[in-house]
Amino acid sequence: MISQIKVTSSKRNQFIDITSEIEAFVKEIKEGVVTCFVPHTTAGITINEGADPSVQADMLRKLEELVPHSGEYKHAEGNADAHIKASLMGSSVQIIVKNGKLQLGTWQSIFFCEFDGPRVRKVLIRAS
Amino acid sequence: MISQIKVTSSKRNQFIDITSEIEAFVKEIKEGVVTCFVPHTTAGITINEGADPSVQADMLRKLEELVPHSGEYKHAEGNADAHIKASLMGSSVQIIVKNGKLQLGTWQSIFFCEFDGPRVRKVLIRAS
Amino acid sequence: MISQIKVTSSKRNQFIDITSEIEAFVKEIKEGVVTCFVPHTTAGITINEGADPSVQADMLRKLEELVPHSGEYKHAEGNADAHIKASLMGSSVQIIVKNGKLQLGTWQSIFFCEFDGPRVRKVLIRAS
Repeated sequence: MISQIKVTSSKRNQFIDITSEIEAFVKEIKEGVVTCFVPHTTAGITINEGADPSVQADMLRKLEELVPHSGEYKHAEGNADAHIKASLMGSSVQIIVKNGKLQLGTWQSIFFCEFDGPRVRKVLIRAS
Repeated sequence: MISQIKVTSSKRNQFIDITSEIEAFVKEIKEGVVTCFVPHTTAGITINEGADPSVQADMLRKLEELVPHSGEYKHAEGNADAHIKASLMGSSVQIIVKNGKLQLGTWQSIFFCEFDGPRVRKVLIRAS
Repeated sequence: MISQIKVTSSKRNQFIDITSEIEAFVKEIKEGVVTCFVPHTTAGITINEGADPSVQADMLRKLEELVPHSGEYKHAEGNADAHIKASLMGSSVQIIVKNGKLQLGTWQSIFFCEFDGPRVRKVLIRAS
């Protein structure tokens, strides 16, 4: 079964915790691997600490330092940095599932990574 | 079923769009997740915008800026940068498939990322 | 079946080759894709060259240069860099399996990427 969740960002660069939506999707799955796929080219997805929001802030600041919004880019739409950041984070994550639970570590959350918001986005989900 | 596609690069650093080859592989699959795996250590794979080639150019230029070909590397083969770029992009991508179609976003293409070409390379493909 | 391996790091930043443990896990699998997942937020996983240890050294040095341990981070635990490095490498790898063998390239090894050691860590494994 393929499912889809909607993600609404409110800033240009923003990490949005989507763990609970993915948890809801896997609750009937006895054992498997769930793939969460971002069908966008200026957003990515990653797994990292969800407890302290400073971690997300540090990550966004470092990505902006390495790949600044303003720079010598050829792409004329003004969001070349967002494309590059998206590939650095990646377009999908895979999480192992057991007895309806994501086998995440204690501190792990799943983050949608917006790099060209605010926008309405989606994430596709499927278990194998 | 495991399949394999051949990729021939013509430059040292080059993104090569392999979307149509992966599309051909999945056309009999009703529903699943396809894994595309690069069995090389100086090449990677990523999903990003395929419409404007400037995006690929910007990505390659930024990767070269962050990880220059010439630098203080210990690896004696002269391609340490290619190894590092490969890990930043990653060795595989996963795409959800439905009714024989890759569930990619409108602007997404699958790119083989050559960082030590020109070479003849391969990508392994399997659906789960 | 889900399995788990234990990884013990001895340095703050360290790549640890876990290929043989993953090989052992897949030896009864006729065909599939194995997912190796790191349930930590200051460690990642990547596939790269295992023959020359200089490649690992170059990769760690470059990651440290791009994301230094000491920097202007908000996260108060002193390991913000480790979180960022973890997301740059990623939390999982997928490898295609055939006749009990990982379909890795000649030079590829699977590396657990420690960025906040020394610690005792784990990697979860499942084949689809």
